[in-house]
Amino acid sequence: MNLRESLLAARAAARRLALLSGPERSALLSDFAAGLSQPENQRTVLAANAEDMARAREEEAAGRLSSALVKRLSLDAKKIATTVDGISQLARMPELVGRTLTHRILDHGLILKRVSSPLGVLGVVFEARPDALVQITSLAWKSGNAVALKGGREAAASNRALAALAQQVLAKHDIDPRAIVLLEDRAEVESLLGMDDLVEMIIARGSSPFIRHVRGHSRIPVMAHADGICHVYLHASADADMAARILVDAKCSYPAACNAVETLLWDAGAGAALDACVKALSEQKVELRGCAETCKRHPQMKAASEADWDTEYGDLVLSIRQVPGIAEALAHIEEHGSSHTDAIVAQDAEAAGRFLAEVDSACVFHNASTRFSDGYRFGLGAEVGISTDKLHARGPVGVEGLCTYRWLLHGRGQCTTDYSPEGRHYIHKDLPSDG
Amino acid sequence: MNLRESLLAARAAARRLALLSGPERSALLSDFAAGLSQPENQRTVLAANAEDMARAREEEAAGRLSSALVKRLSLDAKKIATTVDGISQLARMPELVGRTLTHRILDHGLILKRVSSPLGVLGVVFEARPDALVQITSLAWKSGNAVALKGGREAAASNRALAALAQQVLAKHDIDPRAIVLLEDRAEVESLLGMDDLVEMIIARGSSPFIRHVRGHSRIPVMAHADGICHVYLHASADADMAARILVDAKCSYPAACNAVETLLWDAGAGAALDACVKALSEQKVELRGCAETCKRHPQMKAASEADWDTEYGDLVLSIRQVPGIAEALAHIEEHGSSHTDAIVAQDAEAAGRFLAEVDSACVFHNASTRFSDGYRFGLGAEVGISTDKLHARGPVGVEGLCTYRWLLHGRGQCTTDYSPEGRHYIHKDLPSDG
Repeated sequence: MNLRESLLAARAAARRLALLSGPERSALLSDFAAGLSQPENQRTVLAANAEDMARAREEEAAGRLSSALVKRLSLDAKKIATTVDGISQLARMPELVGRTLTHRILDHGLILKRVSSPLGVLGVVFEARPDALVQITSLAWKSGNAVALKGGREAAASNRALAALAQQVLAKHDIDPRAIVLLEDRAEVESLLGMDDLVEMIIARGSSPFIRHVRGHSRIPVMAHADGICHVYLHASADADMAARILVDAKCSYPAACNAVETLLWDAGAGAALDACVKALSEQKVELRGCAETCKRHPQMKAASEADWDTEYGDLVLSIRQVPGIAEALAHIEEHGSSHTDAIVAQDAEAAGRFLAEVDSACVFHNASTRFSDGYRFGLGAEVGISTDKLHARGPVGVEGLCTYRWLLHGRGQCTTDYSPEGRHYIHKDLPSDG
Repeated sequence: MNLRESLLAARAAARRLALLSGPERSALLSDFAAGLSQPENQRTVLAANAEDMARAREEEAAGRLSSALVKRLSLDAKKIATTVDGISQLARMPELVGRTLTHRILDHGLILKRVSSPLGVLGVVFEARPDALVQITSLAWKSGNAVALKGGREAAASNRALAALAQQVLAKHDIDPRAIVLLEDRAEVESLLGMDDLVEMIIARGSSPFIRHVRGHSRIPVMAHADGICHVYLHASADADMAARILVDAKCSYPAACNAVETLLWDAGAGAALDACVKALSEQKVELRGCAETCKRHPQMKAASEADWDTEYGDLVLSIRQVPGIAEALAHIEEHGSSHTDAIVAQDAEAAGRFLAEVDSACVFHNASTRFSDGYRFGLGAEVGISTDKLHARGPVGVEGLCTYRWLLHGRGQCTTDYSPEGRHYIHKDLPSDG
């Protein structure tokens, strides 16, 4: 396949996707959900996944793949059902393309609207997780965009089967199936990065070095879903029970997730809360690594090294550091955090207010687990990733983050030279918008 | 000066700017306006500008600078008064930092807010226009950001005087004056492009080759203010008088502006409207260049070459092309436009609706001059530029485009594992936000 030709076709198909009515778009998504629910299609997809899994298990046995990766790679009827449920939810969500974001009277008969619009063609590079292909595709359709997709190579057969299914659904709706372009290898990703005339945004999920490579080799704007070095800070006013519950959820409910906590900071006055956390986490077999002050209080604890403060374990390991107060907690998070998700546990409203005002991360929480940082939990329907960038979209990215906007102006022949201190004046009155 | 150290200081100062209260921020802006209004300060600024102008006039005489550039470079009491007025307007505008953009109940006692937040340090490269330094600085303050500024070299003395004045205002408010870093040469711009750990966004105003260079040499996200190849399309239903008035405004009121029209497309059925435009534009001494069909109707007209359709004249020149209908007009705009601003003149609502739905440009107008594409006219207070990018901000960019957001979650100790099909359910109910 010639990538440039495919992307040109994708661009044309994107225009069709952009102009679908709300009901047409919902029908497209519902048909995708229905297609994935069909037993025959499921057999095809699961057979492809079995191929991928057989290869992956060999690599795992040879020590070349982690068991966490193999777990994410595997598909089964239950995972597919969850995915189908997600598509159906998106189908039912209100139409977001064409929504009026600003509605302003500039003058009598001169009405300005800012309306949400699709971007065009998105390039998405993601890990070996076949269900991610389905989520990304359905978010792209809901936002009226075409996609060029490159999943982890371990999922190649599963991705081909799922993309083929999605393309059948497009064809049934008289949309060019090349609205989905499946990239097969790294060389195609490199070519994609050079096509800034055809691709509007790259969504890069993966390691920091990979994302630096993408940013350094493309003029296309990049939205990165990168490291999650998340912190929980126990203020002196923290409730000990609450702290322990939040820490267990934040560390143990899914340690490989980017929104899992990696470092616990505790105020010198929060010793009781620390003790409760250490007890609860130890019961969950979490390996704890403490600073000198922490180890003084818990002498059985392993000592942390400087590198621990900058490490995303993605595993049942947690580093723990004592800080003299909130200022030092803020400074630690600024120095070592990845601007993903950070939380304070505190009964003191003033301390919580300061933490929420000053931590410059995508998500900043008070008395809640870092694992709430998630598109579904935030009510976005689904997410294409959790952006650690500040521009365009930040934190969990749903349909809105895949849209841009256009300014539409309706007039009656007005000219700018009609307006001046001596002539006509602008009214600039806002009317209610959709959101 | 060591640029990295200056930017580190700017970053620290940005945190102070971010945490200013609304009244403190307004006072800062008002003091900047007051400072610029003071006769002694004006004399200093005008003397610096006279230095720049003397050099520029020599270069103009030698044919190395255009008279349009020299005109933009010059400052006088009237231009300063307009600039002061702009700052005062920004000071009076509602506080935009910390605005609640989303307000959602996830569950009882689990409240999610998305609040607007400053970006941090912005890098802005702009043309030789000293009033732009003032506008950009005041927009940065209103949005709580620090700035590294590099203006056109012809304005070096003016920019130094204006930046010094702004820094005095910062110092008076106990903010590190290094919240403004003035770059002196191109080498410093190149260094800036490499500091993706300190600079959150580059705003690049200038030529396409310059912007390609910036995008190709930086991992920092770039917001470009580039070419404006704007179109007006006369539909068969166009009112001839209105068409002529709009064309004269769009071409003649400021031909060097990026929102000036460069190409007129006319439907075969819009001959009378074309004739009215040709007559009115000829009276304004606009050089017209027509396609074969246009020249057949107006035999005195100069013939356009293929290159004309891709040219931003920035001058009293207009290319004119006949198109068989709206589909071909849309295709021409997609092929030759720069996604800046395009307008249709039509009495037919259906044609206008199709044009507004399908033209993928930042600004799409119906029966209004392309020159309305402007931050002040749109009611944004001022603009840092007109973005021709699709990501983050599009079209005229005011304070909102210089902000990002953070997700703040207030809980009572909730954990994600409390929620499941069998356990607690999310409510996901939206409350009114600040808009």
